[in-house]
Amino acid sequence: MAETRPATPLLDRVHSPSDLKGLSDRELHQLADELRAETISAVSVTGGHLGAGLGVVELTVALHAVFDTPRDKLIWDVSHQCYPHKILTGRRDRIRTLRMEGGLSGFTKRSESPFDPFGAAHSSTSISAALGFAMAADLGGDPGDGIAVIGDGSMSAGMAFEAMNNAGALKKRLFVVLNDNEMSIAPPVGALSSYLSRLYAETPVQDLKEVAKGFVSLLPSALQEGAKRAKDMLKGMAIGGTLFEALGFTYIGPIDGHDLDQLLPILRTLKARATGPVLIHVLTKKGKGYGPAENSPDRGHARAKFDVITGEQKKTPSNAPSYTKVFAESLIREAERDDKIVGITAAMPDGTGLDLFARHFPRRTFDVGIAEQHAVTFAAGLAAGGMKPFCALYSTFLQRGYDQVVHDVAIQRLPVRFAIDRAGLVGADGATHAGSFDIGFLANLPGMVVMAAADEAELRHMVATAVAHDEGPIAFRFPRGEGMGVELPADGTPLQIGKGRILREGARVAILSFGTRMAEVLKAAESLSARGLAPTVADARFAKPLDRDLILRLCREHEALICVEEGAVGGFGSHVAQLLADEGVFDRGFKFRSMVLPDTFIDQASPEAMYSIAGMDAPQIEAKVLNVLGIASIPQRA
Amino acid sequence: MAETRPATPLLDRVHSPSDLKGLSDRELHQLADELRAETISAVSVTGGHLGAGLGVVELTVALHAVFDTPRDKLIWDVSHQCYPHKILTGRRDRIRTLRMEGGLSGFTKRSESPFDPFGAAHSSTSISAALGFAMAADLGGDPGDGIAVIGDGSMSAGMAFEAMNNAGALKKRLFVVLNDNEMSIAPPVGALSSYLSRLYAETPVQDLKEVAKGFVSLLPSALQEGAKRAKDMLKGMAIGGTLFEALGFTYIGPIDGHDLDQLLPILRTLKARATGPVLIHVLTKKGKGYGPAENSPDRGHARAKFDVITGEQKKTPSNAPSYTKVFAESLIREAERDDKIVGITAAMPDGTGLDLFARHFPRRTFDVGIAEQHAVTFAAGLAAGGMKPFCALYSTFLQRGYDQVVHDVAIQRLPVRFAIDRAGLVGADGATHAGSFDIGFLANLPGMVVMAAADEAELRHMVATAVAHDEGPIAFRFPRGEGMGVELPADGTPLQIGKGRILREGARVAILSFGTRMAEVLKAAESLSARGLAPTVADARFAKPLDRDLILRLCREHEALICVEEGAVGGFGSHVAQLLADEGVFDRGFKFRSMVLPDTFIDQASPEAMYSIAGMDAPQIEAKVLNVLGIASIPQRA
Repeated sequence: MAETRPATPLLDRVHSPSDLKGLSDRELHQLADELRAETISAVSVTGGHLGAGLGVVELTVALHAVFDTPRDKLIWDVSHQCYPHKILTGRRDRIRTLRMEGGLSGFTKRSESPFDPFGAAHSSTSISAALGFAMAADLGGDPGDGIAVIGDGSMSAGMAFEAMNNAGALKKRLFVVLNDNEMSIAPPVGALSSYLSRLYAETPVQDLKEVAKGFVSLLPSALQEGAKRAKDMLKGMAIGGTLFEALGFTYIGPIDGHDLDQLLPILRTLKARATGPVLIHVLTKKGKGYGPAENSPDRGHARAKFDVITGEQKKTPSNAPSYTKVFAESLIREAERDDKIVGITAAMPDGTGLDLFARHFPRRTFDVGIAEQHAVTFAAGLAAGGMKPFCALYSTFLQRGYDQVVHDVAIQRLPVRFAIDRAGLVGADGATHAGSFDIGFLANLPGMVVMAAADEAELRHMVATAVAHDEGPIAFRFPRGEGMGVELPADGTPLQIGKGRILREGARVAILSFGTRMAEVLKAAESLSARGLAPTVADARFAKPLDRDLILRLCREHEALICVEEGAVGGFGSHVAQLLADEGVFDRGFKFRSMVLPDTFIDQASPEAMYSIAGMDAPQIEAKVLNVLGIASIPQRA
Repeated sequence: MAETRPATPLLDRVHSPSDLKGLSDRELHQLADELRAETISAVSVTGGHLGAGLGVVELTVALHAVFDTPRDKLIWDVSHQCYPHKILTGRRDRIRTLRMEGGLSGFTKRSESPFDPFGAAHSSTSISAALGFAMAADLGGDPGDGIAVIGDGSMSAGMAFEAMNNAGALKKRLFVVLNDNEMSIAPPVGALSSYLSRLYAETPVQDLKEVAKGFVSLLPSALQEGAKRAKDMLKGMAIGGTLFEALGFTYIGPIDGHDLDQLLPILRTLKARATGPVLIHVLTKKGKGYGPAENSPDRGHARAKFDVITGEQKKTPSNAPSYTKVFAESLIREAERDDKIVGITAAMPDGTGLDLFARHFPRRTFDVGIAEQHAVTFAAGLAAGGMKPFCALYSTFLQRGYDQVVHDVAIQRLPVRFAIDRAGLVGADGATHAGSFDIGFLANLPGMVVMAAADEAELRHMVATAVAHDEGPIAFRFPRGEGMGVELPADGTPLQIGKGRILREGARVAILSFGTRMAEVLKAAESLSARGLAPTVADARFAKPLDRDLILRLCREHEALICVEEGAVGGFGSHVAQLLADEGVFDRGFKFRSMVLPDTFIDQASPEAMYSIAGMDAPQIEAKVLNVLGIASIPQRA
């Protein structure tokens, strides 16, 4: 079935943003329409983040038409919205490889294009980076303006506030475009969001068209005469922006972000005249111009491949519930019996399954916004107040709250439960979203309990374990995606802290797995057994505290021990090595190997492909067993 | 020489905050005066954070007089200012043991007193914690109000903003006292600080006394009738507070924080009537009431023991320059030759030595405020813009910017230089300030170079190495305190990346040190040599990349290898263990030990005492050598 592509005569002539400079404003309108059609067409083939890109089509055209990219540094916050930008900046020929192995990244990426001066994937970094470029230019580094485009959800993160606070004090020319669509991934929460709503509720957008026309003639002289006159004049445009003015920014807006007749003149004027930090408040609609996206609750945030006409997504049917869902359902079940359980998410209710929890326990669910630092310490406060908080974060985002885990949770031994989703390699989101480091950065904290689930039934038990463990902090990690399809007990049973289990008794080699590599370990064991070399397979369950008895017994009873984990060096295997060294196991000769993620950032691919690249699939585990025993190869039995 | 203590007849009768309930307002005035005198007297004996406590004497008295601590949860942000609080809450008898081994902590600490419901030492955690307590109370956890006292410097951190944003949206009763003294440790920077200055510059404090009187009679009914009327009424009190109102808080202030006649009635009214989040803006003077503190540039922030009359500090003369100073002077020297070098500090210009750098290069120095997340990504932006940024942070505070190190620096391979001060155990500041985890959480990042200085000359070379290394990120760590007194070269020489050095050639055992434990290692080696067992001593210099050749040679040529580092398991020794396992060194029997910080948080003491507790001083290194060789003991040679 041939793919039908939209007709894009004008876009076909654009190979670089410099080609936009020769177009009339009328042509730019048409270009935006074609760019939108091309974006929809591309994502229908690849899947990916659709809604965000559709919301910034006009903004993308306007920014590239007015500013001199890549000399001017245009930074898309999070960069879910970067697909139209990629199409305009010389990557249209590869746009249908988005998020695929070997294809374009779903995010901006420095190594991909000079038009991506600063990659992004985690939220709220763009203002800091843009300010860095601005100050570098000021000090004789690369010349050009710094321009950050940041959503209202991302603006609520503390990091964005820190950058605004610094930029306002430095008083250098800097452009922050607040892309206000009342949506991050979920609708944004928090007082800032209410504030923004009030800002534009009291200033109907349609009134601004006339103001924008007047703005062009007025602004230059006003800006020349200093910020004060510009501010007075702009008061007619909006009731407020005082929050941003308090932080030292000139506030301009709100502007209709889909109206090039507003965007182009305002950006041109600012480009020509601005002397200090400017916040341009732009209103957009996520999913704009594509009905099926506009009409969905998440405005087409992330989509599988879909039919362009109907919007119907082509999802592959799943065989087993996702780990996320098993976590959520387990927690709901526990919370029905224990009214002290509360759930905390940082703007990821869907991703973490806390949306399901919230349906049952709305008062006991806290979506704190994109605010992982606060999420962790807020959870610590709840724990100190007698509650049982489950802080549900992706591994990669827990990095944002690391100091709080150390300082507020671990040192105080507060019983915060960390439900760590997206542990290990995550697939299409690539290196920026890999959960590679949490085992190491948690297991070295005194008093922390660190678990990893080998399958979804184990996850259920670990939720129960976390509920029962009230003596200090505890964390359990589990991967993105479907479970193994194992039978799920109705209720979890608390595990004994620091005790692993043996799954297969064998000889010569013991494989000690921590996490869901277990499936591959069992495959490897099966294959080896079929050839007469049956290894022992054990599930560590705990990276901390270690099951010393089990581990030392495995060492006594085998020639070799191989640890396997979905994490970087410094984690589970390193703790086992420390134990074996301290116990003198190595002194008398013992074969020990620790299979960890390699010392590289792995680009997007399927999780399975990424683990193959990482050297951690069943054949590679098998090879490691043979290698450690010094066996070149063993033939398949007849 | 007998210590002269101030007469404190009223304070002598106060054993707990409940004793304040029976005192008249006039007596509370006197109590505050006695509390100030006692605080000065105590700190003159112990040394410690003087200025912050003196600034909140009246606030401390007022909060304990009005609220029902410990049922109400009073949380001091950072808690440098907690000494008067400790004196009032049953710890006066131990106040002269502050910051000493076995004595009171210099910070609030849950394990020390029920009046410390949430410990603090890092900045800007108090609002999150107080909100946690408030929501716990709301959901059937521990009852009582949540009250955060936070300085204007701390308020500039993103985490505080995240908490305000969440609290404003939750709309529950919560008290945030903004203790505005225009000082954190250094004068605060950033746009928020300018905003606060404008707030009170336009509202003379002395005018508020009359308003405060009227406030008492007016506020109750106003608050009863809702936030709007109260807000209107309070407009007479201040020009602004709109920043906080935008975030959903009722703003009250500014109030003279040294005037109990304002503090007591306002707090009483709020305690009786507030229904939502309230921000109480209190103006105080750091060092208030003690001339030598008030008149010093840092307002008596941290003091050695001092003479109460003259304020003269009793500092022990130093033998060698501090590592901090060597870092700063090395960087200045490099920056004279290389105009791309810039320095970044997060509100710690003195602590990091960037105050010295700023004297030479004011335009090339950035104090971004208490904002480590921004600091790291801002540095990444500067690096992407062609500069050579040195991001100078304490190890413990780098934890705040960990995700930014991973996501913005390491994944993008940007050449940000991390100058990590206060690495390892730090002494009087105790567990919250220990730099225990950075080796592990940096060395597992692909492409990161991680160095530790064995002495101050090595530090100078490492600064030069960092300047020269433009291919990716690089970090170097060094401890608090004086150097070893070794000769300093005028200029540093770039080290070869990933190459260590041998300091003593010996036999049987090799000790491989990473960092300043080297001095103890050399002592141990000296002592062993005197008894006929001369070990080889090597300086790893790099935890990443490891010097494979050196390490494997040491293994080949010795029976045993002992790694030593000032960090937790998962760091340098773990990387060495991974190498030895991969290379099959253990297979044939090899004695390996890794000496790391123990799996406990170590309370304050001198750094030397803390390292003894940690098992990492010379005698213990010596014992480890004997132990690994299976030698019970060897006699001292005659």
